[in-house]
Amino acid sequence: MRRDVRNLNHVFEPDSIAVIGGSPATGKLGHVVLKNIMDASFQGKVYPVNPKYREVLGLRCYPDVHSIPGKVDLAVFAIPAEHIPSVMEQCGRKGVKGAIVLSAGFGEIGRKDLDEKLSKAVKKYGIAMIGPNCLGALDPSKRLDTLFFPFYKLGRPRIGEISFATQSGAVGSCIVDMAAHFGVGFAKFASYGNALTIDDADLVEYFGSDPRTRQIILYLEGTKDGRKLFEVMKKVGKKKPVIVLKAGKTAGASQAAMSHTGNIAGNYTAYQAAFRQSRVIEANSLAELFHVVNAFSQPLPKGRRVAVLTDGGGLGVLSADAIEAEGLQLAQLSSETEKVIREVLPQYGKVGNPIDLIADSGPEEYRKALDALLADPNVDSIIVIVLFQAPALDSSILDIVISASDQRKKPIFAVAVGGDYTAESRKVWDRYGIPSYDSPDFAVRALKKFTEYSLLSQKKK
Amino acid sequence: MRRDVRNLNHVFEPDSIAVIGGSPATGKLGHVVLKNIMDASFQGKVYPVNPKYREVLGLRCYPDVHSIPGKVDLAVFAIPAEHIPSVMEQCGRKGVKGAIVLSAGFGEIGRKDLDEKLSKAVKKYGIAMIGPNCLGALDPSKRLDTLFFPFYKLGRPRIGEISFATQSGAVGSCIVDMAAHFGVGFAKFASYGNALTIDDADLVEYFGSDPRTRQIILYLEGTKDGRKLFEVMKKVGKKKPVIVLKAGKTAGASQAAMSHTGNIAGNYTAYQAAFRQSRVIEANSLAELFHVVNAFSQPLPKGRRVAVLTDGGGLGVLSADAIEAEGLQLAQLSSETEKVIREVLPQYGKVGNPIDLIADSGPEEYRKALDALLADPNVDSIIVIVLFQAPALDSSILDIVISASDQRKKPIFAVAVGGDYTAESRKVWDRYGIPSYDSPDFAVRALKKFTEYSLLSQKKK
Repeated sequence: MRRDVRNLNHVFEPDSIAVIGGSPATGKLGHVVLKNIMDASFQGKVYPVNPKYREVLGLRCYPDVHSIPGKVDLAVFAIPAEHIPSVMEQCGRKGVKGAIVLSAGFGEIGRKDLDEKLSKAVKKYGIAMIGPNCLGALDPSKRLDTLFFPFYKLGRPRIGEISFATQSGAVGSCIVDMAAHFGVGFAKFASYGNALTIDDADLVEYFGSDPRTRQIILYLEGTKDGRKLFEVMKKVGKKKPVIVLKAGKTAGASQAAMSHTGNIAGNYTAYQAAFRQSRVIEANSLAELFHVVNAFSQPLPKGRRVAVLTDGGGLGVLSADAIEAEGLQLAQLSSETEKVIREVLPQYGKVGNPIDLIADSGPEEYRKALDALLADPNVDSIIVIVLFQAPALDSSILDIVISASDQRKKPIFAVAVGGDYTAESRKVWDRYGIPSYDSPDFAVRALKKFTEYSLLSQKKK
Repeated sequence: MRRDVRNLNHVFEPDSIAVIGGSPATGKLGHVVLKNIMDASFQGKVYPVNPKYREVLGLRCYPDVHSIPGKVDLAVFAIPAEHIPSVMEQCGRKGVKGAIVLSAGFGEIGRKDLDEKLSKAVKKYGIAMIGPNCLGALDPSKRLDTLFFPFYKLGRPRIGEISFATQSGAVGSCIVDMAAHFGVGFAKFASYGNALTIDDADLVEYFGSDPRTRQIILYLEGTKDGRKLFEVMKKVGKKKPVIVLKAGKTAGASQAAMSHTGNIAGNYTAYQAAFRQSRVIEANSLAELFHVVNAFSQPLPKGRRVAVLTDGGGLGVLSADAIEAEGLQLAQLSSETEKVIREVLPQYGKVGNPIDLIADSGPEEYRKALDALLADPNVDSIIVIVLFQAPALDSSILDIVISASDQRKKPIFAVAVGGDYTAESRKVWDRYGIPSYDSPDFAVRALKKFTEYSLLSQKKK
């Protein structure tokens, strides 16, 4: 097999893109993907390919790839499955080295014959191919966007340091959309679908050596080559945090996964063992995946001792419950911290952890308490709970938490639960790399995974 | 003790309200609460009481309650704790029968002396008092709103059928705000704080006999009279679903709860036993409380067999995992349903559960599949997953799910994960009583609690 078939630079760093099936008909896949490539302001050349049209979306349209005058680096396929192998052949002859096949209708519906033909074509010409049956790829720093979901329905993340490989386009789109919503940045994204050539392990390995990627996410139902994936995870897991959401754990779900991408989800306990051995962090749900991913913008904690700072007593109690349930510890505050808190809250004699600032507290009380906790040698991480609804707080509390986080001394996780005002306020933190959560237990569970990863990394160093 | 001290009609159905400490100074508690009472368009008389002013917010202000010319039903206290017992005495002499004491500074900070004085006053005159150290009360149908959090920060729910008693004002405000955000309606709300007179059990009992309340929520750290609460829960639990979030389960959290409202959180296992015996549903987190509450707008399921309908394969697999993990069952679809699905998806041979409509499906495919599932005798409940990001769907999918839900045949839970477009779309469902969730496992866990409640109710009938 030619080495080129695994060279993902051909997919992520093209200078020119051909959209096979590019179309002016708004309902068509080939329309949406072409429009999105243009709307993302891709800086290179874009060539719609469709024998039915001479112009599409203001661009000259070509009857086939051979008619395109210049070089084509990446071909994006948005035509029916049965035509794809022969057009891939043409692309090969044209010298195309990267391909993304969005179309479904291959092995996942029993058309193993089409799989074989397509596979033969890409191997013959050394084409790195993502798909088929996938959502495409994204690289915000290159303005590369082959996702076929419209911009107004699916937000696009800003440039960042997270790279994400997903077997499910749907799950991929949900996470990408959430990231955009909360202002969380992405380095690269690929939905690899049926993984006919490029698979989970290839993407994880590529992200592992990508200098802009500092954190890797993988959504996985089942892999074709468990050994290969395990070896890659072990290698990459030493360098960068890898967070996996494994679906298809149970018999019924595994059945569903089978019909979905044609891959067997396999024995979950074997996966779990592999994750553990390769320092991969496992998320237990879609929500938790996002919760854990966000945590990594903070510095790693040195231990399990958590301080909780709150202006809502009940939210502190709920956090304390979660901290003990998850095997973290409520920090014993130093006498220095206790002194500061007593100065902040002269009326209230008892200083405990959670520190309950009560609802009358303003931003200044938070600032003093946060400074004390950052300096406290007994505290490894801080959960700061803000009841934005309280009249005593104004939006300067956002800046105070951001300033504390900017010191990069200890991880700070924020919790704020509520409606419109609270949700909009929280987004500011997320944009500044402070993970925020809308239920105390979400913050605690993410902090637990983050802490475990940190302690494991310290041990293995 | 005079019977009146537990008559909550005095609090929830006043014709006139005096705001003790009503003030023109925007930072003051007495300003915010007076403004909110007026902004909520309370239909009765409102009297600010404050010797410093002659007029507040355009209303005549009185130096004391005796100077008020007319009858006063409810007094809302927003003055320092130490003055409250004597003013409560004056209220008693004036004939006030309901009181809400927002101010903190009583037993929870060791001022048992103030507790005793206040208690003596309300008992002497038969005043039903909520608080002290609480957030106040809400009845959207009466336009009663004594919450001291500003409207722009804390949304107010529409008129509905859920009543909510909370020991923590912070937790109460979070849930109220979320309900407003998602368009979930409330009948009554009370934050009872230190529960000096009116306690958890009194509120649950009152909500139990309130004709507009169909569902009751309780946030509880610890109760003063476990036996009383247990008896009330047993009685009310037979008539209406009662959902409890118990905080202070662990040693550290229990300590935090103690300093927060001055109540001991107590032995969690005893609470659990009481909840089980009284058919009370326990939520495990703040998020889950809201998730479970929403479920009850749907008809009760007859059994554990769940059908999952999705246009995103991966989201179906994740749901299937959660269904098996939570002890629900993936329904075996009837041959009639399979036939319909095969007609809807001619290309795709295998019909399983989850039903994967794939991303090309439009609203019409959903409609046909939903109709088949509503008629299928093998299906007890339906989880419908919508990838709003998919180009093939337009917003008519909202109406199709609403129409299916309006048939009231089986519970329908919706799942949609994403950013702005998805979040706004989901809200439409919540407003129409279709519980919607932003992670498949959230839907499944809520459905599990809902199903268990249903099966228990069937057995006990």
